[in-house]
Order: sequence, then C-alpha cells, then structure tokens
Amino acid sequence: MIQTPYLLFLGDAPDQLAAKVAQGIKDWRPENAVGQFRMEGCQADLGLVDMTLAEAKAAGAKTLVIGVANRGGVISTAWKKVLVAALEEGFDLASGLHNLLRDEPDLVAVAEATGRALHDVRVPDTAYPIADGKRRTGKRCLAVGTDCSVGKMYTAMAMDAEMRARGMKSTFRATGQTGILITGGGVPLDAVVADFMAGSIEWLTPDNDPDHWDLIEGQGSLFHVSFSGVSLALIHGGQPDALILAHEPTRKHMRGLPDYDLPTLETLRDAALALAWVANPAAQVVGISVNTQHMPEAEALSYLGGVEARMGLPAVDPFRQGAARLVDALAAI
Amino acid sequence: MIQTPYLLFLGDAPDQLAAKVAQGIKDWRPENAVGQFRMEGCQADLGLVDMTLAEAKAAGAKTLVIGVANRGGVISTAWKKVLVAALEEGFDLASGLHNLLRDEPDLVAVAEATGRALHDVRVPDTAYPIADGKRRTGKRCLAVGTDCSVGKMYTAMAMDAEMRARGMKSTFRATGQTGILITGGGVPLDAVVADFMAGSIEWLTPDNDPDHWDLIEGQGSLFHVSFSGVSLALIHGGQPDALILAHEPTRKHMRGLPDYDLPTLETLRDAALALAWVANPAAQVVGISVNTQHMPEAEALSYLGGVEARMGLPAVDPFRQGAARLVDALAAI
Repeated sequence: MIQTPYLLFLGDAPDQLAAKVAQGIKDWRPENAVGQFRMEGCQADLGLVDMTLAEAKAAGAKTLVIGVANRGGVISTAWKKVLVAALEEGFDLASGLHNLLRDEPDLVAVAEATGRALHDVRVPDTAYPIADGKRRTGKRCLAVGTDCSVGKMYTAMAMDAEMRARGMKSTFRATGQTGILITGGGVPLDAVVADFMAGSIEWLTPDNDPDHWDLIEGQGSLFHVSFSGVSLALIHGGQPDALILAHEPTRKHMRGLPDYDLPTLETLRDAALALAWVANPAAQVVGISVNTQHMPEAEALSYLGGVEARMGLPAVDPFRQGAARLVDALAAI
Repeated sequence: MIQTPYLLFLGDAPDQLAAKVAQGIKDWRPENAVGQFRMEGCQADLGLVDMTLAEAKAAGAKTLVIGVANRGGVISTAWKKVLVAALEEGFDLASGLHNLLRDEPDLVAVAEATGRALHDVRVPDTAYPIADGKRRTGKRCLAVGTDCSVGKMYTAMAMDAEMRARGMKSTFRATGQTGILITGGGVPLDAVVADFMAGSIEWLTPDNDPDHWDLIEGQGSLFHVSFSGVSLALIHGGQPDALILAHEPTRKHMRGLPDYDLPTLETLRDAALALAWVANPAAQVVGISVNTQHMPEAEALSYLGGVEARMGLPAVDPFRQGAARLVDALAAI
C-alpha cells in the first residue's frame, strides 16, 4: 500500500491532459490530495494549493505521486532534482511511468539512504497465488466492456462514490496503474504473469461482510483479441455477482484493431454471463454503462432510452447522469 | 532455439515417471535423442544407448537436456558435477526445472567461461509483442479442453506426426515446458506477462504457406477458473481455423477444483466457437479427442461411439487409435 495523503507532482506537464492521473486522484479521492507541486512551465493546474515540499510535508503529505506522463519515456534531470529532494524531505515516491523509479540508480541510492519507499505501480510487488476458485463471502461487481477504454474504471469509481454516499459498504478494487495511484493499492493486472492472473484477483477481493460490495475495475474486453485473456481472468478470479456492460457507441472498430467490429451488447451479455456462471452460478447482468461523451445531449438520451428498452436493463451514462440507477440495481440483488 | 540433437540426462531418477520429459522427447522426436546419461541409482531407462559425455559429443549431441524432475526442487551437488562437466565438454544445457539454471552461480560462471548457453524453458527469453489481430496466411489448429491435463499436447503431437507421415505441411507449436524441450522451441505461455499472452502466440504462429498447418499446443481450459485467461489468449492469438475438443470422461471434477464440475462437450463447443469467431469467423470444430486411459477398451469404444453420434463429429482416442481421423477432418477443410 502507498501511504496517503499525497502531494501531486505535475512537473512540467505540457497540458492538462498530461496530468490525468493527478486529475483522477483529485476527482475521486480529494482527501488524498494535500496539494500540487508544479515546476516552471507547467501547463496543468488541478486547482489545488501549490506547495513546496516542506509545506506539503508540514500539511501531512506522505508520498509524492507522479501524476503526469513524462515526455519521451525518460525521467528528466529537472524531475530528478525534485524527486531526490522529496526523498530527502521524507516523502515516499509513487509512479506509474514505464520508466521505473527502481531502474534509476540515483533514486534507489537516495531512497535506501533515507529509508523511503519507491512504488512503481506498473509492476507487481506481490507473489500472487494460483486461483483456487473457492467461493468467497461478500459481493462483487465487475464492468465488462464491448471494447477497451469505454469507461469501465469510471463506472466503478462512480458507483463506489454513490454507494459510500448512501452509507453502503463498498470498496473500489483497482486493477490498473491509474486506479492503484488513486486509491493507494491494487493489482497491476496487465503486468501479472499468466498463471497468476485469476489468483491475483482472488487476492484483491477477499472474503468480506455479506453486504459489502467490491467494485472491481475491469480491463480489456472478451472481444479484444489482444487483451481478452486478462478480461476472462477478471471474470473468473473476481467471481462477480453482478456484471455491468460498458459500451462506447461511436467507436468505429475495436481500439487499435481496425479490422475488428465491436460486438453488440447482446453478444457481450451472452458471452460474459456464460463464462461468469462457471465461477458464480448466480451471476447476473444488472445494468449498462454507456460513455456518450461523443454524442450531443439529446442524441445521448435517446440512445440510452433505446438501449434500455431493447435490453430490459437500466442504461445510463454515469458521467452525465451519475451512477444512482446502477447502484439501485446492485442494491436490489 | 535449443540446439539439437540432445543427450538426455536422466540423473538419479527414482522411477520411470520422473523421466517423462525425456520419454516425451524419445517418443515424439527420436531423431533428437542421441543417447541417455544415467547416474548411479537411476531407476529410469528409455531404452536408448547409455553414453558418457564424450561419447555423446562424438555422436553429435549439442545439448544436454535435463529430462527428469529433481527431488526437493534443488539441483543437487551430484547433478551439478555432471552439468559442469557437460558445459566443459561443449554442451549447452536445457532445463524445465523450477530451480533455474541461471540462478546457479557456478553454472553461470562455467557457461560464460566456455561460451555455452543455459536454456531455462520455464521462463520466456523473448520480448513478445502485443497482439495486433491481423489475419495470417497458413492454417492453424488448436485443441481446447473441458479441463486441464486431458491430452491436448498429446493430441497435437499425434496429429503432427500423422500429418508428417502423410507428407502434409505441419508444425507442432509448443506452449509449455515439455513441448518446448521436445521440439527445441516455443512459448512458455504460463510464464508470459498478461498483456503479451496473445501476442506471444501470434509470434509463435506466423504467416506460412496456405497449405501449412500449425498444431498449437493447448493450455488450461476456458472452464478452469485458475487458467482460463491463458486458454482464451491461445484462441485469440492463435486465430485457429480448426478446433479439436479434448476431454477425459472419468474426471469427477475440474483438476484441483473439487467444487467445479466439468462442462459438457456441447457447452465447451459453443463457448469456444463463439470466442474463436472473434479472431477467425471461419473457425470450426472438426473433431473430438478423448483420453480414455482410465476406461477398459470396450467401454472406451462404446463411449467414443456415443460421443460421435451425439456430436456429429469424429471422436477418437489418439493414444488407442491414432490421430488419422482427426487429420482426415483437418484435410477436409
């Protein structure tokens, strides 16, 4: 686990989009974000208080989180100066960069000398078990997509926030770098060795109170040939009670695969349910989350209404409408 | 690739079963097996010529293959002496042991000094790409199982042997340790990082002649919750034209999962086909391979006849009956 709260490092971000990890932390876990640290020329701004390392330390921040993508895949000399100073100031460092902190000898040396931790959330730090398929107590919900990057993480985050607001027992379970940095822990599933994928998800979603829900972050798609194995490991390791179908209706083809059409929601429902029943015979599809960001409001609402009528399930865009109706569906199980 | 032919190291095998990797090499690639090396007390015998290292070298052997499981998971001092002598004699070493050769400093030192290679086939030695899903030329066949360890490798090996005997163009594509040692190359799929599973299978089964068949070694089962993701990566990375259903009818539950029933052959067929069509809309199930080793002959034949009538597909036990009818089915595509 990464120690919270954080100081969010925005570096010399060329634009707001480059800081989307930091934005995610601020949006979903504002209590984890004490302030932001910006270097000269930084073009991103989260609207948090700009702090020096010493100010953030005094305000209680424990970890400096690199909340920005780096240019060219290398940690620059300018960044290094800040990272080294942060270690010396007593911060741990956390990063989802491809360029691992642990591969930088100077950072490793300072971290060892100061007794601080370097968290590279892109690679696993746990020896996961092989899945044993045993039924666990508590309930689990998983979003499965017609494609990659259709809003599965957003959906789970929005449902988790709604459930907390209602006083329901809920935990978002991160399976990707951004989710891990936002919440401070999770499994970087795309980097787990094949034999341990399902076991890592069992480990992530252990026995819990009967009325507790794990909102498991989905990955990939059963219909995306590059990553489908990861999606199936989530279904079988997560043994979900509830599935949410996630879709982006303006996508012309599967992400990165120009020759592959998206499946219909019906095809996804049937395939995902049949496979989910292997691990949990009570699994059911409870709702549909549609990312309508590329549609005008009227078109989006009309599309959602059509899906809802066709599929007989609540269909919402949680960004436009909130996740209340999806949570209602969970609560009805 | 591991250099062939091999001298098969049987060490101090406590019984014949402990030498099953060596047995597999001798059964399926006898041309790769120059001789066997047995230590004092060895209780296994492949019926090959016993050779010293010098004799095997003179007979053309290039690699000493550890064809036996080690006791207690460690490479013993007695084995070490032979392995070091083999490196000094000019052999490469190849092993599928959990205890990696590369983790033994003395072996590494001698291998470096002598310029020999240490092949640990349990771990990948290649940076595999992410799958791109592009259609490849040539044809591919994959066995999918109702469970793990039901005879998928044996089926593919037997079909490959039959196809070679008929003069058809065929390549067995290994995806596990034993298959890699038998053939000298392949992908240790269970040890590949999640994001690259399907890509590793694309890499393993590249463009080929239109009338060439890759016989891809299956792994796991779509219905085995511990390893299903690996099975799906094979289906989507392999984009098979032909699927063989593999089954062991006396299995009481899924291997290692006492609470999980095996799926029916119909359930497996429907699930595997629907998923295979994502990568290859022409995919079809062409036959059924049944491991009847735990049934008396008459019961086995009666069972096979029943499956054949029920499923409308050739159903054979390739160990009892050979793979001819499965190959006939492939040739008819």
